[in-house]
Amino acid sequence: MTQKQLHLNAFLMDSGHHEASWRLPDSDPGAALDVQHYVRLAQIAEAAKFDSIFLADGSVAMGTGEFRASGQFEPLTILTAIAGATERIGLIATASTTYNEPYALARRLASVDHVSKGRAGWNIVTSATHEEAANFSLAERPLQATRYERADEFLTVAKKLWDSWGDGHFLGDKEGGRWGDPAQLRAIDHVGTHFRVAGPLNVPRPVQGYPLLVQAGASEQGKAFAAKHAEAIFVAHQTLEQGQAFYADIKARVAAEGRNPDHVLVLPGLVPILGATEAEATVMAQELDDLRIPEYGLRQLATFLDIDAATIDLDAPLPREVVEQEVREGFDSRARLVIDLAHRENLTVRQLLGRLGGGRGHNVVIGTPEQIADQMETWFTKGAADGFNVMGASLPSGLEAFVETVVPILRERGLFRSEYSGTTLRENYGLPRPVNQFDVEVANA
Amino acid sequence: MTQKQLHLNAFLMDSGHHEASWRLPDSDPGAALDVQHYVRLAQIAEAAKFDSIFLADGSVAMGTGEFRASGQFEPLTILTAIAGATERIGLIATASTTYNEPYALARRLASVDHVSKGRAGWNIVTSATHEEAANFSLAERPLQATRYERADEFLTVAKKLWDSWGDGHFLGDKEGGRWGDPAQLRAIDHVGTHFRVAGPLNVPRPVQGYPLLVQAGASEQGKAFAAKHAEAIFVAHQTLEQGQAFYADIKARVAAEGRNPDHVLVLPGLVPILGATEAEATVMAQELDDLRIPEYGLRQLATFLDIDAATIDLDAPLPREVVEQEVREGFDSRARLVIDLAHRENLTVRQLLGRLGGGRGHNVVIGTPEQIADQMETWFTKGAADGFNVMGASLPSGLEAFVETVVPILRERGLFRSEYSGTTLRENYGLPRPVNQFDVEVANA
Repeated sequence: MTQKQLHLNAFLMDSGHHEASWRLPDSDPGAALDVQHYVRLAQIAEAAKFDSIFLADGSVAMGTGEFRASGQFEPLTILTAIAGATERIGLIATASTTYNEPYALARRLASVDHVSKGRAGWNIVTSATHEEAANFSLAERPLQATRYERADEFLTVAKKLWDSWGDGHFLGDKEGGRWGDPAQLRAIDHVGTHFRVAGPLNVPRPVQGYPLLVQAGASEQGKAFAAKHAEAIFVAHQTLEQGQAFYADIKARVAAEGRNPDHVLVLPGLVPILGATEAEATVMAQELDDLRIPEYGLRQLATFLDIDAATIDLDAPLPREVVEQEVREGFDSRARLVIDLAHRENLTVRQLLGRLGGGRGHNVVIGTPEQIADQMETWFTKGAADGFNVMGASLPSGLEAFVETVVPILRERGLFRSEYSGTTLRENYGLPRPVNQFDVEVANA
Repeated sequence: MTQKQLHLNAFLMDSGHHEASWRLPDSDPGAALDVQHYVRLAQIAEAAKFDSIFLADGSVAMGTGEFRASGQFEPLTILTAIAGATERIGLIATASTTYNEPYALARRLASVDHVSKGRAGWNIVTSATHEEAANFSLAERPLQATRYERADEFLTVAKKLWDSWGDGHFLGDKEGGRWGDPAQLRAIDHVGTHFRVAGPLNVPRPVQGYPLLVQAGASEQGKAFAAKHAEAIFVAHQTLEQGQAFYADIKARVAAEGRNPDHVLVLPGLVPILGATEAEATVMAQELDDLRIPEYGLRQLATFLDIDAATIDLDAPLPREVVEQEVREGFDSRARLVIDLAHRENLTVRQLLGRLGGGRGHNVVIGTPEQIADQMETWFTKGAADGFNVMGASLPSGLEAFVETVVPILRERGLFRSEYSGTTLRENYGLPRPVNQFDVEVANA
């Protein structure tokens, strides 16, 4: 395979990414509470040679649970269960730098990387909501600037900890009575603004050196953080032009940080709604739309835009003050994309909710396998994507349909692998194993 | 089975509980770094119908790693891996109330309980060492009183969180569009000294209601905490009389808390060193002793007694000021047992290290299968134990020998099960599923 290949991540979510997916006749409404559901999805993605699967997360129950699953199991626990039932696919989960301690989280991620033989990835989030702050003894959510400052220091500490137990530490010399080489187990003695951590970590350096570092924030601070630390970026774009602009911007930022832009993969979200014909796909989309519960969508939208649901008229466009608001504290940068979509296409709130039901701001593509493959090829070859974050509107059916109908077309066009070539997540993504900073220090000394 | 049955927990530790076990000819010195080693040990224990396995833990690398494994993988990750490879055995791991947040840990434990279908247990520790404090941004380790106060509030919050997602929350009513019953998903709005937690938890109530709550601290504060919260207690005793005194004391404390003493199981540690004859067992013990590295033992002892290693003469008894010291801040209560052992038997430090090499203060029994079964029966029938925490001096060989030679004798005597009767850890231990506190409130309203 000499042609450049695109990468595929399967973003897993209970019965599917469409808010009404759990109500489809074939869906298991209890999918969120069934670890075996996630295991089966990962196996489907692995059989199709996807690079990875991904689980989003937050430390908060979702709403009242009346209209959609209220939660999911802790994602690193799910990843560990999946690790035992798969061989090659990468395993990415969200964890927060605001509500974890670096020693504990670095250790857990290293443990999952070892248990999976080098397949762990970490989607780094800073947890913006009031609700999470209220579950972690904080009176107020921390300011975005503070959260990102902590996240940056958290990554510095985590990398030191992963490097603290050197690859050569274990000797196992029974005869000489030397279990390990003390020179390869190093205190880190980190003293910073947010953390003081002595180290060393009490688990070996991850198989991958560090777990794959993933990021999904699209704010200015999120992009700055991604340019510095991320190796894969999940993004939401509605149009090719948006995708191209982001892609060019982030690759330039990566280069400005002195990093290789080819070592940071941009993976836009894609919600495929598939039919053998366009008409069939439209029927499927309509079926999902008809199952939506408007109260649910309105509550979600109000939370997303950080406004009062009572101020919203379903049959009018978004209020002018919402459309015109600037990015501000507590304002999810993805909300800007939603507002732009409503404004650009002059949608009523009811119509907007219909558009959001499938993808929460991600790109919903309704069509035949060829049409979806065409759009993917365009984005991939025209500088908007290194691959895609595939979000089945319904699961497993949406993922199965994609695997059975779109993946073969991508293969025919030489755009996607037929077999895994490596064994780790980094190898799937074509990314190097990071050099140990302490070994570099020794080499330079 | 009408006769009262004893309970067996297998305490797993890399190559074994004896500090030199990794140097035995048959040992895998890298066992600490191999999750499959732990999986195999759990399978051996499950085949023998043990109630549970247990993993100790601390958030610190052990020493320099020169003379023994420097760490192990994060234990809830190991439990999850074991859950996928076993069916019935209970899975207990240590986690700290000082270095976790209740929302995050309650969620993880609930997740492991669900993944394992009701087999999770939590050994609650408060993390006494300087070294852990230095890995979690604290200048000083918290005082014992503060740690236990936090632990008590932590348990209160965790129980509220486990109860917050009621057993009847999930409806999955596709037709009516009702995923869940909001009345069964309750905010907890906890406001206390150490924590403010809004809730509800974002995972369902554990299969077991709460994971099995285990405790191992033998200080005054540890015993008071155990009497209030613990359902199983791991203890270290050298003599039957010590065991009986502790047993009577803790059961009385449990009753004084208004709890049923039969619902708190006392499980003393037991390090069996087995031989077909007493002479053969003694040879085995000697082989292990000969492989010890004195510098390692001395460092461990000094850390354990919280004294300076340089003050200790290997060929003299412990210094008088050590023998006579009172329990004080930072003084592990188990250290008192070690000092008493040295004093009672008039041991030099070198002799003491020999005695500790196998059990770190636990009861090492060197003998034939009958002799070990006799001692277990005595402790069980004379009011010192409800079962035992079996600590193989070498692993897997020490556990295999116990399973093959001692367990059949216990069965012949009608003291131990031949088959599992329940499916959850609580059922193995004969303990009830806790009632949901919010359901009680509703019933009383």
